[in-house]
Amino acid sequence: MNYTLNNIPERPSKPRSNGFTMVMDKGLSLRQTEDFIEVAGSYTDIVKLGWATSYVTPNLKEKLALYKSAGIPVYFGGTLFEAFLVRNQYEDYKRVLDKFGMEFAEISDGSITIEHEEKCKLISDLSKQVTVISEVGSKDAKKIFAPYKWIQLMKAEIEAGSWKVIAEAREGGNVGIYRDSGEVREGLVDEILTQIPEERIIWEAPLKEQQVWFIKLIGTNVNLGNIAPAEVLPLETIRLGLRGDTFDYFLNQVK
Amino acid sequence: MNYTLNNIPERPSKPRSNGFTMVMDKGLSLRQTEDFIEVAGSYTDIVKLGWATSYVTPNLKEKLALYKSAGIPVYFGGTLFEAFLVRNQYEDYKRVLDKFGMEFAEISDGSITIEHEEKCKLISDLSKQVTVISEVGSKDAKKIFAPYKWIQLMKAEIEAGSWKVIAEAREGGNVGIYRDSGEVREGLVDEILTQIPEERIIWEAPLKEQQVWFIKLIGTNVNLGNIAPAEVLPLETIRLGLRGDTFDYFLNQVK
Amino acid sequence: MNYTLNNIPERPSKPRSNGFTMVMDKGLSLRQTEDFIEVAGSYTDIVKLGWATSYVTPNLKEKLALYKSAGIPVYFGGTLFEAFLVRNQYEDYKRVLDKFGMEFAEISDGSITIEHEEKCKLISDLSKQVTVISEVGSKDAKKIFAPYKWIQLMKAEIEAGSWKVIAEAREGGNVGIYRDSGEVREGLVDEILTQIPEERIIWEAPLKEQQVWFIKLIGTNVNLGNIAPAEVLPLETIRLGLRGDTFDYFLNQVK
Repeated sequence: MNYTLNNIPERPSKPRSNGFTMVMDKGLSLRQTEDFIEVAGSYTDIVKLGWATSYVTPNLKEKLALYKSAGIPVYFGGTLFEAFLVRNQYEDYKRVLDKFGMEFAEISDGSITIEHEEKCKLISDLSKQVTVISEVGSKDAKKIFAPYKWIQLMKAEIEAGSWKVIAEAREGGNVGIYRDSGEVREGLVDEILTQIPEERIIWEAPLKEQQVWFIKLIGTNVNLGNIAPAEVLPLETIRLGLRGDTFDYFLNQVK
Repeated sequence: MNYTLNNIPERPSKPRSNGFTMVMDKGLSLRQTEDFIEVAGSYTDIVKLGWATSYVTPNLKEKLALYKSAGIPVYFGGTLFEAFLVRNQYEDYKRVLDKFGMEFAEISDGSITIEHEEKCKLISDLSKQVTVISEVGSKDAKKIFAPYKWIQLMKAEIEAGSWKVIAEAREGGNVGIYRDSGEVREGLVDEILTQIPEERIIWEAPLKEQQVWFIKLIGTNVNLGNIAPAEVLPLETIRLGLRGDTFDYFLNQVK
Repeated sequence: MNYTLNNIPERPSKPRSNGFTMVMDKGLSLRQTEDFIEVAGSYTDIVKLGWATSYVTPNLKEKLALYKSAGIPVYFGGTLFEAFLVRNQYEDYKRVLDKFGMEFAEISDGSITIEHEEKCKLISDLSKQVTVISEVGSKDAKKIFAPYKWIQLMKAEIEAGSWKVIAEAREGGNVGIYRDSGEVREGLVDEILTQIPEERIIWEAPLKEQQVWFIKLIGTNVNLGNIAPAEVLPLETIRLGLRGDTFDYFLNQVK
C-alpha cells in the first residue's frame, strides 16, 4: 500500500480460497488488458471472458497469453459451454479448451435445460481435464428456485467435482440471487450459507450495492464475481472499509 | 472466428446494407480509437462522432485518419449540422465537411424546427457533396409523431436523397421510437416496416434491451445505431444467439 | 476549436475561478491517464483521486507525475482524510500529503461526525500546508440539512480557509443536494446562491441530467465536480449549447 492506515481489515494473499474477486472481461483490447492488469491485477483472482465473447474476440490467443504472464487464470463464460452442448458439440468444446490451453472451465445451465444428474456427470467428466466452476441459477427471471433446491444443487455439483459454484446474477444483476429490482434475496443467501461453505461459493455481484451487501453480510473476504474491470479497485476499497458505503461498518467492527 | 460452432446465423460481409452496426464515439483518445478498431473494427460499419463533440475534440484530424486507414466511414452527428444551420452557417458547414474530407453527413432536426420541405431540399443539396444519412424524430420527449407521419417523413427523405434514415433515440434511449421508460414503441416499428425497406433504416438502440428487442423482431441482420464502442462485441454475440438474451430465440429458429 | 461556430458561449481560460470542471479518477491506469489528458486535459481544472482509492492504486507516484506534467492539480478524496482522522492519524495524513507533494487536500465529514468548530480548526490548520477544499453534506441519505444550515456551514468553512466548498453528491448522485431519486433539491440550491458566491462552490454533478440542470440554472461557467473522465468532453459540449440538452436553452439566450 502507498501509506499506512491502522486497523484495516486483512486480505489473504493470492492464491486464496476466500476474498477473491472474479472479473468479467467482455471485450478488452490487448492494451486495455495490460492496463487492467497494471491497475487491478494484484486484486484479481480469476477472469471470465463473458459468455461466448471468446467466439468473436479477434485477439483471443494474445489476450490469454497476457493474462497467463500476469498469473491470472482465465475461463470462458458458461454460455459458451451451453452453446457447444446444445449443438451436440461437447467433444468439440473439450478440444477447444485444449487448443487454447485452458486450465479452468465453467459448466452452467442458465440458457438451456439439462437434467441435473446429467449436469453433474458433465462436471465430473470435464473435471478430469480442467478445474470446473459450475453455475447454479437460471438467466430466466421466471425460473425461481426455493432455497432448499439451491442448496441441493450446489451440494451435488461440489460432490461431482466443482471447485466452486457460482450463484447466477447476469451482467445486469437482476436474476438468480437477485430480485427483478436488483435487490438481493437475503433469506436465500442466509439459508445457503448454513449448508455450503462460503469459500466454495462465488456470488455474482456486478452492482456496487450488491457488493456492499455481501461484504456487510459475509465480510471483507467474501468471494465476488462478475466485477467489471474498472470496478476492481473501487471494490477493493469497499472490502477495506475505505469507501463511504462500508466506512462505518468496519469502524464499528474495530471498536 | 476462433472455433467452429454449428448453426450460427449468417452475417453478410462488409460493406453491407443489412446487419450493420453504427457506433457512437463521444470522445475516444487516439489510442482508445486504435483499441476499439482492434477489438470491434471488423464488426463496425460506420462511426458517428456524437452530436457536436467534433467541435471540442483535440485530436480530430488524427482520429479521422485512424478510422480511414481502418476502412471505417465516419460522420459528424446531426446536432452539428443543426448548430451550423440555425446560425445561418450552412455554407460554412459544407466547407467544414470538405476541409476534413468527410464522405458522409447527417441531416437531422432533433433540436430545431425545419419545415420538412426545406429539410428535404437540404438533403438533396448536401447529397451532391456527400452521402447523406437523415434522422427522423425529435430529441424532445413531448414531440410524438403518429406512425403514418414517421412513414411519410422517412419516404420523403429517402426520395430526396437520403442513403439511410435513422430513427432517433438519443444516447439514453428515451425518446423517438422509445417511450420515456426506454421501452420500444412496438406498434410504431411494425407499421414503419410495412412501408419502408428495413435496409434503409438504422434503429438507434443504445441499450441492450433495445438491441435484443430489434434482433428478435427483425433478425440477426437488423441495422442498429448509437452503439457504445465497448458494446460492439457484446452486440455481435447477441446477433449470433450467443448471449443469454437471444440464445433461446435463435435455437428455436434453427429447430 | 476545429472550426468556427458563431454565438458560442465564452469559456474563461485556465486557471479560472468559474466554469471549472473537477474530474473523479477512480483508478485509471497510467496509459488511460495519458489518454484522458490528451482528450480532456485542456477542459479539466482539477482531478480528485476518488475517496481512498489512492491507498490501493499501484501506480500512484507515476500518476501524480503525469497530472503534474500536464499542469492539472490533483487531490485525494475527502474519505481518505476521514480515514486518517478517525484513526487518530491526522499528523500521518499531513506527512502523506507532504511525501506525495500534494498541493491540494479535501476535508470532509461525509462518513464520520466532526464537531463543526473542530472541522473548521482542521481546515484552518491544513490550509497552512496546502490549498483546502472542504465538503459540506453527508453521504448518509438520512442526514438532511435545512438550507440555512448549508449556508452557515459553507460560510464558516470559507472563513476558516477553504478555497472552495463542495456540495456533496456521491458518485451515484443521490444524496446531499440531490433527492434519493437523483433529482436536484432546487430550492436548496437557489437559497445557497443568495448567500455564497457561486465561484466558491463546486456542485458535484456526476449524472448528465444534473449537469444540465446546473448549467441551465447558473450558466455555462458553473463549477461542476465528480465528472467521470469520459464525460468531460460531452460536458464541454453541454456547457456550450452543442448537445441536444442545452441546444435550445443557449439559442434562446443569444436571440
